[in-house]
Amino acid sequence: MDAMGDPEFADIEAAAARIAPHVRRTPLLASAELSTQLGMFVEFKCENLQEAGAFKSRGAINAVFALPAEAAARGVATHSSGNHAAALARAAQRRGIPAFIVMPRGAPKVKRATVESFGGRVVECEPTLAAREAAAAAIIAETGATLVHPYDHPLVIAGQGTIVLELAEQTERPDTVLVPVGGGGLLSGTALAARHRWPGTRVIGVEPAGADDAFRSFTSGQLQTQLAPRTIADGLRGAMCARTLRLARANAHSIVTVKEESIVAAMRLLFERMKLVVEPSGAVPLAALLERAVPGGRTVVVLSGGNVDLDTLPWLAPAT
Amino acid sequence: MDAMGDPEFADIEAAAARIAPHVRRTPLLASAELSTQLGMFVEFKCENLQEAGAFKSRGAINAVFALPAEAAARGVATHSSGNHAAALARAAQRRGIPAFIVMPRGAPKVKRATVESFGGRVVECEPTLAAREAAAAAIIAETGATLVHPYDHPLVIAGQGTIVLELAEQTERPDTVLVPVGGGGLLSGTALAARHRWPGTRVIGVEPAGADDAFRSFTSGQLQTQLAPRTIADGLRGAMCARTLRLARANAHSIVTVKEESIVAAMRLLFERMKLVVEPSGAVPLAALLERAVPGGRTVVVLSGGNVDLDTLPWLAPAT
Repeated sequence: MDAMGDPEFADIEAAAARIAPHVRRTPLLASAELSTQLGMFVEFKCENLQEAGAFKSRGAINAVFALPAEAAARGVATHSSGNHAAALARAAQRRGIPAFIVMPRGAPKVKRATVESFGGRVVECEPTLAAREAAAAAIIAETGATLVHPYDHPLVIAGQGTIVLELAEQTERPDTVLVPVGGGGLLSGTALAARHRWPGTRVIGVEPAGADDAFRSFTSGQLQTQLAPRTIADGLRGAMCARTLRLARANAHSIVTVKEESIVAAMRLLFERMKLVVEPSGAVPLAALLERAVPGGRTVVVLSGGNVDLDTLPWLAPAT
Repeated sequence: MDAMGDPEFADIEAAAARIAPHVRRTPLLASAELSTQLGMFVEFKCENLQEAGAFKSRGAINAVFALPAEAAARGVATHSSGNHAAALARAAQRRGIPAFIVMPRGAPKVKRATVESFGGRVVECEPTLAAREAAAAAIIAETGATLVHPYDHPLVIAGQGTIVLELAEQTERPDTVLVPVGGGGLLSGTALAARHRWPGTRVIGVEPAGADDAFRSFTSGQLQTQLAPRTIADGLRGAMCARTLRLARANAHSIVTVKEESIVAAMRLLFERMKLVVEPSGAVPLAALLERAVPGGRTVVVLSGGNVDLDTLPWLAPAT
């Protein structure tokens, strides 16, 4: 860690060794057909095939297994209810410690079921950010559990950065790596890793135009508020924090935004051509290629997750 | 080849070398979660991620690239309209020769579009088997093209068998390998390869109960007719031939049948837990595990293909 408490490249290398027994080395798949269609060589890093269905397992495992034994025994907690919650529950289960997951009443049953399938203890609260933070603070005060933030956490960011070290063993240096941006943990970690492992490679964050706080923050250099996000990419509705903005500005090339219809088109293309189940957030980087919003050349697209409701795929008519 | 013109193990080894530049080494994915649920160690061989979306690319490439130059120049033909047709068109395209694909008028547009995307020339006919065979015979008489049958062909069978050689580089010897059975090309090839590479491993064919000719043929030892197949697994509606029955009886352990609802449940499980798009036929072997219809132990399940209509997934209410 540096003086700001931010992760450094050595932390990513340490994370890779720490998480190796607990996460999957995900396949990197190329498609001659899609490469021809897009006019560039494209490979897909399949973090949708990662344990618990998303790259979040990397950061969660790293944070949980780095805890000293005494702190670990008291458990971990979070008030994120998506892929990070599932990944944290799974990480805690593997370490044999409790995970307290604060979830708003009325959260989709499938999210709750997933957390519970990994032994996570769901703590219900009212569906406001204030209530979630208060509930998390209360459970932490009561149990002594350690809060593991989904992205504002150096060990979580270092864990996400391990994707690049794995990629470097799987392929040649690409010109561009595309990742989705929500809170910015994946962007921060991969950009930091790429600057050291693959100097000259551009790491570009891709964000839905309907939830463009990261684009505005990155461009202005000032942390911007996420205003009533409107996007199908439910994993990207969060806002960057000072830490991820600082790391992204220091290491990433740029952030671009994409339209909703491009996200749906990209998601369908991944199902149809790549035979991969990818959630809307995970399809966002390919949307940037479909919109020709990023430079050409050898490109790695990170498919960040595959946790999608299979009863309401976005290209199907809504159930009535 | 032996005296019956059947493939031998050496033909499978030759096929592996011949097809390597033209097909994908598909990932083998394990799921701790599914293994726990099923009470056995299960790995999935992802031929849904194979070129053209199915294992059929292996046999088609092997048959096309084994042709002498002069015969090859006149092209290849088939009257199968499914995954073999797409795989054959792609194989011919890679060798730079024509592929004539006989298809019944009214075949799904997507099948025609796929064949044409690989440069295949579609020849329309009436929707009866007699008309398809006549149309194929006519185009062969006219062009001198070579018929490449989807499974009654030693080089096609040898090509399918390469899956086992690849598996042997990816994992330890399993107790059981499960494959779907339609015409029996995949079962014949994998069982022959496994008997040599993995003696003691059981290769078991799995078939929909609503299209159970292979089960009846294998059990009785006499080729049985496929009677009006009724199954969602459209790739498995064909019938075994004398050659595949002979090879299966000599090398495979058994054939079991599964119910339609198990096939749908298996398909959904593969989408949800494995994040893989698998067609109904490809989900048939997992259905046998869900029904506890096969022995336990270390098991490899071959996910044979991923070409599925994403507008009408079988767990969704039918469009009205």
